[in-house]
Amino acid sequence: MKSDMLIVSSEKLADLCGVNPAQVRKDLAYFGEFGVRGVGYEAQELLREIKRILGTDRKWALCIVGMGNLGMSLIENDNFRKRGYQFAAAFDLDPKKAGTKLPCGLTIQAASNIPEQVQALGVDLGIITTPAREAQRAAELLFKANIKGILNFSATQVRTPECCIIDNVDLSVKLENLVYHLETIYKGTSMK
Amino acid sequence: MKSDMLIVSSEKLADLCGVNPAQVRKDLAYFGEFGVRGVGYEAQELLREIKRILGTDRKWALCIVGMGNLGMSLIENDNFRKRGYQFAAAFDLDPKKAGTKLPCGLTIQAASNIPEQVQALGVDLGIITTPAREAQRAAELLFKANIKGILNFSATQVRTPECCIIDNVDLSVKLENLVYHLETIYKGTSMK
Repeated sequence: MKSDMLIVSSEKLADLCGVNPAQVRKDLAYFGEFGVRGVGYEAQELLREIKRILGTDRKWALCIVGMGNLGMSLIENDNFRKRGYQFAAAFDLDPKKAGTKLPCGLTIQAASNIPEQVQALGVDLGIITTPAREAQRAAELLFKANIKGILNFSATQVRTPECCIIDNVDLSVKLENLVYHLETIYKGTSMK
Repeated sequence: MKSDMLIVSSEKLADLCGVNPAQVRKDLAYFGEFGVRGVGYEAQELLREIKRILGTDRKWALCIVGMGNLGMSLIENDNFRKRGYQFAAAFDLDPKKAGTKLPCGLTIQAASNIPEQVQALGVDLGIITTPAREAQRAAELLFKANIKGILNFSATQVRTPECCIIDNVDLSVKLENLVYHLETIYKGTSMK
């Protein structure tokens, strides 16, 4: 390592992430040989490698189906843009919403445009934020567009063909995790 | 087991969850002895035990701070209510929003009411859906109210005292997971 490089220790990384240093070392070692034992990691190199591993060293074009409150909030999410995920198109299954201009500059399109627009814009990933009853229909349109990955935020599971990876994101599971940890900590005692 | 009981196999459970049967058996075994080897699990008993483990055999009162698009979508989320999480109060740091009636029946309150209202309503958990710059302020008000668990959906990490568990939920991490899996599958081949 050159002397002018910024070195970061697994202890420092662990503190920033809220985990323990051994976990940081173990997780990184899973992907290859990073850092020097007893010294630490060269920060720029580590950052570059992590981005490569996570696929965030390139831009990913997203489309979103379902422009209710959740859709509106995700399309404005700063962390998505910062990490290279850019919304290329927004759709809604309600044709009456088509034509509405969004603050981000996109215009809501009818869902019937999905197969053609997704291909034309080179969209990589789809996000479903429709009501539960419309999620499967939204997904079918994305499959037709040959989308390879979908994040489904609707309150139902969507079944996909093998050629597509879908992650059904149920936000209430986050509450279950939290409650489980609270109960483990406060078991047998009053919570307040 | 009685003959009229509904029995479910780990294979069936695995299929419904999209994981493998060995994982289902291993995960359940972590919490105790469920089911009968070679037969399966008694469905009602398993459901009751899982609810007990996850703490969803009781109602949890929630409050939410930040009534923008994300806040509006979470407060209407069907899965929250179905699993026993009920919103008891909604707050916003912008005093101009106070007094607005929501479709769920609650009225947005000024954030200055948090310490008093959280105690009066017996709120167990807080959800932060403010912009990043306001998240720490929202959290401080929840700590003051003696809240023990917080889900933070804002695009920044919030630091907490030891007496409170916080889960910083970054939805862009879900995209990173998805992209990582896609890259692992399609490595070396064109994605489309």
